[in-house]
Amino acid sequence: MVGVVIVSHSVKVSDGIRDLAMQMSGDADRIVSAGGLEDGSIGTDTVRIMEAIERADDGDGVVIFADLGSAIMSTETALELLADAGSEIVAKIADCAILEGAVCAAVEAMSGSNLEEVLQAALEGASMSKL
Amino acid sequence: MVGVVIVSHSVKVSDGIRDLAMQMSGDADRIVSAGGLEDGSIGTDTVRIMEAIERADDGDGVVIFADLGSAIMSTETALELLADAGSEIVAKIADCAILEGAVCAAVEAMSGSNLEEVLQAALEGASMSKL
Repeated sequence: MVGVVIVSHSVKVSDGIRDLAMQMSGDADRIVSAGGLEDGSIGTDTVRIMEAIERADDGDGVVIFADLGSAIMSTETALELLADAGSEIVAKIADCAILEGAVCAAVEAMSGSNLEEVLQAALEGASMSKL
Repeated sequence: MVGVVIVSHSVKVSDGIRDLAMQMSGDADRIVSAGGLEDGSIGTDTVRIMEAIERADDGDGVVIFADLGSAIMSTETALELLADAGSEIVAKIADCAILEGAVCAAVEAMSGSNLEEVLQAALEGASMSKL
């Protein structure tokens, strides 16, 4: 299945979104939290993101959700470092809300959809009105 | 200042978003987490949401951010129960992404903006492209 990586500045946020995504998708594998710095403080860590992308991928690719500006930059750096190291993982950053997108992606991934379908489901789900 | 309430099915998510919002807004008061059920499990609790709205309000009103469908319903019930109990708190549910919206709202609220301005800043911030 397509993997889902959640990159937040807060490990509470990324772990909590993973919990929600797991519950909504029937405990899908390949949903990986990459939040905070190694000591649990607020920030993003390129190495943690690289490792999360590798854990999330089983060959079907990975969709990545990030919270705020520098989480995107850290993720882009992680993807460059993976490519430099010869990784062939196909990974895309979703340009949408982190929680709403990740939950929709997990549900879609669990149904066996491919990378583009999972990305599209996330973008559509995250842009829906809540009221 | 305008209060910010964060209603997630996961207390990790709501506490983590509060941490981020506090850091971005210089430890603003009146940012309140209302996540999960009383025992910490996944769900939303109308009484916890009511209490959070009351704690967040200092007379300037409250903007509420919720994650998924039933969090909106629980919040609407909480607002009805507060009104039935004679509360005069002015509270609005923001129709946007929970994390992105709450962080933008906290920053705007800290600058002294009013309820409509805070709500607008959240809606605009949450709809911005990340890439």
